[in-house]
Order: sequence, then C-alpha cells, then structure tokens
Amino acid sequence: MRQASIDLSVKLDRIKNDIHELAQIGRCEDDRGIYRMAFTDADMQGKRWLENRIKQAGFEPRTDGAVNVSAELTGATDDPRILVGSHIDTVPCAGPLDGTLGVIVGLECLRCLRENGIVPRRTVELIAFSDEEGRFGGMFGSQSVCGQLNPDALATLSDLDGVLLADELRRHDVEPLGALDAARDPESIAGYLELHIEQGPVLDRGQKSVGIVDEITGLFTWSVTLKGEANHAGTTPMEMRHDAFMGLADFAHAIPRILDENGTARSRATIGKAQILPGAANTVPGIVEFSLDVRDTSAEILADLGNAFRKALSAIGRRRNLMFEFQQKSYLPPVAADAGIVSGLLQQAERLGLLHLQMHSGAAHDAQIMGSMVPVGMIFVPSKNGQSHSPAEWTSWTDIEAGANLMLHSIIDLANR
Amino acid sequence: MRQASIDLSVKLDRIKNDIHELAQIGRCEDDRGIYRMAFTDADMQGKRWLENRIKQAGFEPRTDGAVNVSAELTGATDDPRILVGSHIDTVPCAGPLDGTLGVIVGLECLRCLRENGIVPRRTVELIAFSDEEGRFGGMFGSQSVCGQLNPDALATLSDLDGVLLADELRRHDVEPLGALDAARDPESIAGYLELHIEQGPVLDRGQKSVGIVDEITGLFTWSVTLKGEANHAGTTPMEMRHDAFMGLADFAHAIPRILDENGTARSRATIGKAQILPGAANTVPGIVEFSLDVRDTSAEILADLGNAFRKALSAIGRRRNLMFEFQQKSYLPPVAADAGIVSGLLQQAERLGLLHLQMHSGAAHDAQIMGSMVPVGMIFVPSKNGQSHSPAEWTSWTDIEAGANLMLHSIIDLANR
Repeated sequence: MRQASIDLSVKLDRIKNDIHELAQIGRCEDDRGIYRMAFTDADMQGKRWLENRIKQAGFEPRTDGAVNVSAELTGATDDPRILVGSHIDTVPCAGPLDGTLGVIVGLECLRCLRENGIVPRRTVELIAFSDEEGRFGGMFGSQSVCGQLNPDALATLSDLDGVLLADELRRHDVEPLGALDAARDPESIAGYLELHIEQGPVLDRGQKSVGIVDEITGLFTWSVTLKGEANHAGTTPMEMRHDAFMGLADFAHAIPRILDENGTARSRATIGKAQILPGAANTVPGIVEFSLDVRDTSAEILADLGNAFRKALSAIGRRRNLMFEFQQKSYLPPVAADAGIVSGLLQQAERLGLLHLQMHSGAAHDAQIMGSMVPVGMIFVPSKNGQSHSPAEWTSWTDIEAGANLMLHSIIDLANR
Repeated sequence: MRQASIDLSVKLDRIKNDIHELAQIGRCEDDRGIYRMAFTDADMQGKRWLENRIKQAGFEPRTDGAVNVSAELTGATDDPRILVGSHIDTVPCAGPLDGTLGVIVGLECLRCLRENGIVPRRTVELIAFSDEEGRFGGMFGSQSVCGQLNPDALATLSDLDGVLLADELRRHDVEPLGALDAARDPESIAGYLELHIEQGPVLDRGQKSVGIVDEITGLFTWSVTLKGEANHAGTTPMEMRHDAFMGLADFAHAIPRILDENGTARSRATIGKAQILPGAANTVPGIVEFSLDVRDTSAEILADLGNAFRKALSAIGRRRNLMFEFQQKSYLPPVAADAGIVSGLLQQAERLGLLHLQMHSGAAHDAQIMGSMVPVGMIFVPSKNGQSHSPAEWTSWTDIEAGANLMLHSIIDLANR
C-alpha cells in the first residue's frame, strides 16, 4: 500500500466530545479534579463508558483478565499486530488528559481507518491498560499483558490504605487470578504506540506541537535516614552538634555537582519529601528521613549516579558524625524506543509538516513496561506550563489534533510495514 | 559580717532526698519521664509538696497571685532582699533536675542558714516561679513578678491545645487577675540568683563543676516560607525548576558563612523544623515552611544576623525564582548578668576551690525575665552529655554539691553586701 494521503485526518470534534464526556466521570465539583483511581467505582464506570464508545464506533469491546479494555480493527493478514493505547485511570485530583488522551486518540484512529475503508496489513488494536498510575504499586494492566505478575503478587498487592487488589477486583466480580490470562505472546505483537501528554515544560517552552520519544527514563528511589543527636538549639555550640538536617542540606547542595560530574542532560535528581525529627524550632534535629528520586535514560549512568550519591552521603556522615542508612524503594530500568518506529514517527511528522522535537520521556509510562517485551514508540503533546496531575493540566486543541494525526499516519505506516 | 567559713556546707543527703521525692510527682512509669506541665494536677501537687517541705524546714510558705511559691529567711534589716530560685514545672517527658534543682538548692541554702544561726543583713527569699517552660507562651511566674502581664493577656493566653490559662487557673480555684498582684516593687529586691543545669555540653566536656553565667542569650525565631512550583520530578529539567526545597538547602548551607561573617562564638542558628509540600518522592517541592532560631548575647549582633539572613533569603529567592515570606514569631532580648554579682560568684568559686568556667547561657531562664528589673546572676552545673528535657538528664552529686555550696556562699556574700 502507498502512503496514506496527508489529507486523511482525525475528526477533532469527536476527540473533544470524548474528552469532555469522560472528564465528567469521577469529577469532584469542589476542586474540579478527577478521581478515577484504578478499580474505584468511577474507574469502572470509565471502562464501561469506553466499552460503549467502542460499540458506537462499530467495534466489539473486549475486556481481558486484568480488566484492560480493547477493540480491534482486523487487518488483511494474521501478521503480528500493532497495539495503540494508554490508560484512563487517574491520580487523585487529576486533569482531563494524561493517559485518557492517548486512549481517546487511539479510538479516533480506529474510527478514521474504518470510515475511510482502510484495511491495513496488520490488525490494529486499541488497548486501555488498568492502573497505570500505580495505585497497587506498579502498572497492573501492562504488566499483566507482559506476563510480569504471579499468583503471589495478585494475592498480596495492596494500596497505600492497605486495600488488597484482590478484594477490590472481587468487589467488581473480577477473579484476581484472571490477570494471569491477560499475558500475551510477544510474537503476536509487532509494536506498541502510545500518545501521552508530555507532563513537562519542554514542548510548551519550545513551541513544538509534538514530541517523538526516543528513550524512556529509568529511575531509582531511595529512602535515606541520617541520624545525629537531638540537642538544645541554644545551649549546644555549633561545633558540638550532630545536626541531621544540616547533613541533608549538605547532601542537597551536592546534587548539582554530582549531576554535573556523573550525569547527562537527561539526568534528574529530586528530594521530594523529608521528615525532620523531633521537629521543634528550638531543637537541633536528631534524625531526618528523606526521599531521593534519580532518573536517567542510561542504566550505566544511573548506576554511576547511585555510587556518587552513596559516596556523598558517606562523606557527609563522617564529616558531621551522622549515621546513615538508605533503602532502595524502587528501580525501573530505562527503555529505548524502537529505532525503526522512531524514524517512522519522525518521517510522518516531517510529511505532515508538524513542529516536532525528538526527546526523552522523564516519566514512566505503559510503553516502558511494553518496551520490555515488544518494540515501542511514543508521541508526546505539549503540557501547558508543564502542568499535569492537576485540574490545570491542558493541551491546545491544535496540538491535540497534530498529535492525533501523527498517530493516525504512524499506525497506517507501521501496520503496513 | 566576716566571710562565712568555707567549712559551712549544704547537706547533700537532704538535696538527694528532695530530688527523688519531687521526681515521683508527675512521673510516667512507661517512659520514666516527668510530666509536670504548668498548672496540671501534677504541677499543683508539686507546689503542695514544696509548701510542705518549706513548713518542715521551719519556714512559712507563701503563694502569690501567680501561684509562685516562696519562703523567706528574715534578714537583720529592711534593705532590699535577695531572691533565689527557679521553677518546678517541667516540659512533657522531662528529667528530674532542670529548674527543680535550683528550687531544691535554694531551699537547702535557707535550711543551712537557719540551722547555722546565720542572720544576714538582707532578707533571703526562696521563690519557685510558675510556668517557666512556657506552656502558656511565656514565663508566667517571673513575668508576673516583673509586672509584665495585663488583664487582656490573663484573659487570652492559651496553650497549644487551646486551653485558656484563665480556665486552668480557675480549675484550681485561682482567680486569674490575682497574677497582677504578684508584681513586686523593683526597689524591694537587691538581686536574683538562680542555679540551673547547663542543658548543654560545655561544662561536661570541659570537666568543670560549675559555670558562672555572665550573659543570657537573646533570640529571635522566624517562620519562613519559600514558594516555588510543584512539578513532576521526571519531566521537569533541572534548569526549569523552581524547587522550594533546594532554596532551603541553599539557605541552610549559608548558615555557617553568615555566622562566621556576622556572629560571635556565642551565636547559634538552627533550622529545627521544616515542612515540604506537596511532599511526594516524585514531585519537585513547591513550598517549604521552616523555622529559624537565632541566638546571641548581643542585641546588635542579633540584628546584624537578622539582616544577613534576610539578605541570603532574598538572594536565594531571586536566584531560584522563589517567593519568600518570613514572620518573626518571638524575640527575647539578651540580658547581661550583674557585673558585681558575677565577680562575687567568681570570687566564691575561687575561695571554695571549684573547677569553674565563666560562660553564657544559650537557653532562656527566669533570670532573663528578672534581669529586666533587677540585678541577676546564675550558676550552672554540668549536664551529662549535654542532655536535658529528657529522662536521661543528669548531673553528678559531686557537681550538684559544688553548685549548691557556691550558691550558699554567694547568698551569704550578697545578703551581707
């Protein structure tokens, strides 16, 4: 098949309508935020809404054992299929786009293909993964598809309030062990495409319409404790203190140097929370516990950064007479997008005349999980002011349309390769 | 009168016994801590215990309108009197000494004077002040004596749980306005002496038995807020962040420089508490609120330090694009001990052959309030490992005896001047 005419285009009105309708589900009128956390009643209502929309578009909705919702446009051959999707669950007090946009754009692409009578060589499947936001600690939907779960995990995974995933699934008449049946044969999938909002300021500041993701960041998070001695703030001379907070301040101060010496332009390090004990204005802090979130797109660089941060903590501990402990709380390896998919996306963006930028993803996505099994590619659209996970999250209709058209033409490209 | 023989000495057994007995009142068996917070039932029971002890020693206990408990040894003349004392209220989970030791030592001095038939020229009065630990926000007992309270304060002062001082006093059948009657005529007092544990490590590390306080630190506390922008820790490039926590880290890092450039060996600056918002490991902090406690024995140095800290905050705010606000939460001016009293204390310490150190007090005491009205002097005894406000607070009997004998001889010296 020849390249599809660049006149072939998504219908923005349908996308707008879908976004507005789904945004009503789980919305809180007080803060205008959306509360569609995985497997809550609102999330399940969102899944039913999606199934109905799929039916209205003339496709057959399917729900697998992990409650991932999908729909397929059957291709001309049995060759491995192209998956396109994202997720519709949200963090608490979310905005209307995030993963939802990727699912709605995927559905619009299926509608366009069908109404234009396009039958690609490969089957194209829309998929909306469950629990991408990690209510139960991971990315339950895409991990199930990649066969990364086991019966023990399914019996024990729980949310921060201690609610078991298994109980929450049974509450909706879903048998937890069914998630094992959601695993796909890697040979059945030729590639996974995901459109997502950037969730950062890069495209917005750079006035680009779309980003083409070449790498998805890896990350580790540590929980670090520094222990000194709580003392009276007035009676303890500065040089006799073992001030745990000043140890943390030294460490924070070392972050730019450590990134400069060991990292890349894609490295990030963040201290996002800290607890200071005993926490009284007139007491020298005896203990601080803080989080460290470190990201890079190279596993080697991540390891180098880990070593450098450990050395810095150790030196500060010796210098200030503080004990230190750290625990790695999570590790997610970086994933590279498939080179063939990336060059296809870049080519289509050029053809469509879109202002685009090749970039990395600093956030984790379902594509990161899928990338451990099959070739993946991602399209970003700009987040106004870099805002996400908030009711203020937004992307201009023009950019949404640009991203959706890039997705449409890329699907056609890949499904005919 | 000639100098008292250096053989004249307190009876350590009586002091030991008093400490052990009073330590039973308000003690919690679970954590071995003492809970005799001002105007709780335990505190009132402590005051009754003290009144009984005063009676047993052959003196007449007196309670003023601020529930300060006192006893006097009448002098040979009507000349302005010498006050000696401290406080018996405690912080929650306190140790057995703190102000209690000063009251018990004062009582022992009165007993010694009487049983040795010493009638000094001036009347000597023991006084145990109410609420030195500031349950109701200040030092209620000594402030009442100094006439620093007014009817509005008496009606509105409350503790951190919102309990009104007035209600708590009425619960014990004490009329709150009576505190106004506790004010003394400054002309009636020649000096105030206080023995207290050091609450810091200086004497213990220096292996001294007693400290002679020449100045009591002044202090200000600020509550500072830095406001940046909460952002995703993965998607926000390091150079596009407005990280409020990194602003705090910069500020903490500047403390040693600011003290070196603007302070003295007696300067202290402490960040004792900080709250980081939103406080998630994967979110760049948008807001930090922290406390700053700054002390020095010179009001000018305190003002210089305040200016330097303000400049540092302002520069960090500009550099990191953070807004900053600060509120002064408290200010206590430094107070110098009376030069004549200090030289008298030093002379007696030499005469008694005590290992002593002239030093300042980094903590606030009743002597600081009294010092605004009358000449004051303080004796410190060592705090083992610098610990106080904890069940581990302790001072060796030898040092307690040394401090008590220095107090006894200093009272005789001053009361005969």
